Amino acid sequence: MSDDRLARRARPLSTRLPSPHFPSEFGEEVILFDSGFAAPQLLPDLAPYAAVALTEHRDETLQYASGRGQPYLRAWLAEWMNADGCDVTADHILVTNGAKQGIDLVCRLLLDEGDAIVVTAPTYFTAIPIFRNFGVEFIEVGQDAAGLDVAALDALLARRDAEGKPPPKFIYNIPEFHNPTGATMTGARRTALVALAEAREIPILEDSPYRRVRFDGEDQPLLKALDRSGIVFHLGTFSKLVAPGLRIGWIVAEPALIARLIQLKSEGGSSPLIQRIIHDFANSSAFPDHIAKVQREYRVRRDCILAAVGRDLPEARIAIPGGGYYVWLTLPDRVDGDLLAARAADAGVHLIAGSRFFAGSSDDAPRHHVRLSFSYATPHQIEDGIRRLGAVYRTIAC
Amino acid sequence: MSDDRLARRARPLSTRLPSPHFPSEFGEEVILFDSGFAAPQLLPDLAPYAAVALTEHRDETLQYASGRGQPYLRAWLAEWMNADGCDVTADHILVTNGAKQGIDLVCRLLLDEGDAIVVTAPTYFTAIPIFRNFGVEFIEVGQDAAGLDVAALDALLARRDAEGKPPPKFIYNIPEFHNPTGATMTGARRTALVALAEAREIPILEDSPYRRVRFDGEDQPLLKALDRSGIVFHLGTFSKLVAPGLRIGWIVAEPALIARLIQLKSEGGSSPLIQRIIHDFANSSAFPDHIAKVQREYRVRRDCILAAVGRDLPEARIAIPGGGYYVWLTLPDRVDGDLLAARAADAGVHLIAGSRFFAGSSDDAPRHHVRLSFSYATPHQIEDGIRRLGAVYRTIAC
Repeated sequence: MSDDRLARRARPLSTRLPSPHFPSEFGEEVILFDSGFAAPQLLPDLAPYAAVALTEHRDETLQYASGRGQPYLRAWLAEWMNADGCDVTADHILVTNGAKQGIDLVCRLLLDEGDAIVVTAPTYFTAIPIFRNFGVEFIEVGQDAAGLDVAALDALLARRDAEGKPPPKFIYNIPEFHNPTGATMTGARRTALVALAEAREIPILEDSPYRRVRFDGEDQPLLKALDRSGIVFHLGTFSKLVAPGLRIGWIVAEPALIARLIQLKSEGGSSPLIQRIIHDFANSSAFPDHIAKVQREYRVRRDCILAAVGRDLPEARIAIPGGGYYVWLTLPDRVDGDLLAARAADAGVHLIAGSRFFAGSSDDAPRHHVRLSFSYATPHQIEDGIRRLGAVYRTIAC
Repeated sequence: MSDDRLARRARPLSTRLPSPHFPSEFGEEVILFDSGFAAPQLLPDLAPYAAVALTEHRDETLQYASGRGQPYLRAWLAEWMNADGCDVTADHILVTNGAKQGIDLVCRLLLDEGDAIVVTAPTYFTAIPIFRNFGVEFIEVGQDAAGLDVAALDALLARRDAEGKPPPKFIYNIPEFHNPTGATMTGARRTALVALAEAREIPILEDSPYRRVRFDGEDQPLLKALDRSGIVFHLGTFSKLVAPGLRIGWIVAEPALIARLIQLKSEGGSSPLIQRIIHDFANSSAFPDHIAKVQREYRVRRDCILAAVGRDLPEARIAIPGGGYYVWLTLPDRVDGDLLAARAADAGVHLIAGSRFFAGSSDDAPRHHVRLSFSYATPHQIEDGIRRLGAVYRTIAC
């Protein structure tokens, strides 16, 4: 049998979307505003922790480990979540290979082919193909500066009820420093969303990779902290705060659901070596210093990109994100974000067209947005890149 | 909504099987023949490789990496496979989080709820719940000292055809040092199995974790090396040769299928830190020495357990495995392997009842086998453990 015939027989999957670029693909003259890569300057020195992990703890770090995650890391994570307003134990936590595996596992737990889920419009574009792998129907709900529009969602769901359509299986959202919009849900919106979820018995999938990458303002309560009935699945990760290459995240959920998720996470558990390294680093005195440095440096880069966009793309509206890695530009209606992204790439400046962040039909997606990441480029590169982007903009926006 | 109600609404999963024990659960007087843990004495010193990975290669090892796996590791693996008779490139390889993730991904690619698959009776018991997560029907085929009984499988499949039943979606097997039986397929059986697969257009899932843990005899060709039409998915891993805690394995398949599998492996890629460490170790002069040491030490332990079983459990029939981690004991029909395993555990000797390795109904599973792992216990512990097992045996076999 040819591989083509086998490929035709295999399960159909979602259309492949082009990925953001890897820095190694380009020379230094190319500016990357497209990826959520970490600033190389902020990657911590984990060599001392690895040395201890691979000598003193070798019998632990190189052996099989629990599929649930190492007990000491789960205990540390429970304490960390509780310091942030939650009320959980190590039994509420499953260690995952990054938050993305958490999304996939919750989909496997809750979804059957054809089920509906709620996402914001726009939403995290890497999650879209994961959801599509499950053949979902997307219910898109709007958002504004206060985050997901809960009243609009309630109306949408009431209309579905009236039409006799089944309710969605979960509501996916990034309450902090939303990717791509940067918006953070207000406390009132959070309370309303959890109340809606409880009233309608629809689980929430709270994806919170940027929680600690905050520059301004006060923390709003986690949806998980407002959850009194176990309806919120919370996803955390060390990718955005420490290093993406570790591939360690976690799910917080009720123990009965964690038990099911462990069965689905059938790859033999996350690496105990990495779990030991991240635990020992997070438990060290270097960790609070690292967090402060991350917040300080990314704030500098955010301020730099805001100033540069104001100077070189004065027609773009930009909401000031209080944290995270991204700014979301709203262009005048006459300017096509897809064209801008394509022309900018030709000029060595990579960014992502806003239309890519809409889960529904790409024909309907608004085309007057672009997303710029400020995490990877240095302040100097940000200045240079936005200047070059402004020049491209002027060639297409006249 | 209570978590119970949410749990009831979530997808039903397979019955949870008790796992083998972790060494840390017990004191030193307890002998573990139940797990496939590595000998702690054989875990290599990877600290120097980690130090280089986390300093010289930090920008690579702590950043996001390709979902497909690092190019240099895939190139190394392709060369390694080709030195073993295959004809593949880096594009045929997807790096996974251990071979178990490979099993799961191939299931996600090929299976729909209710599909049939072929497994040997007995088969690798950790794979059984992974398969059950997909709601499969098991077609069990026998094996003997020459491995999977291809003629019997052909007859089974012809009978299914005659009954109008759909063919299985794949054939799962461990051709080398089968877990649990230790049997290795002969070259003739391998050729016949690949021919059957090609004639019937049924993919093969070749799981080969013990390939290099060979003590005696010559390599037989990999099923993948006999595959001329892309019908074989080959699963490799560093778990049994280097260290289980790394959680790095790989799938070899046609590039069109690898492209689909990457989409399903949606957790953001395996850790580039671990990939760098394992690559640099495997590429070093220490690696062949390590392989030789692993083969030497496990051979000592196999010989030790064979001698001890011959002395203390003379009624048990035991096939001599030419490699791998396990021996499979066939007890007289009057002796219940489940009871032996339970009584032995009470006496501080852990092993796994043979009935656990049969994928079909547990009521039908033969009960006169047990599996003993000789990988974790030292020769001294093997002597002591088998002596204690013999004493337990005599209390129930009279």
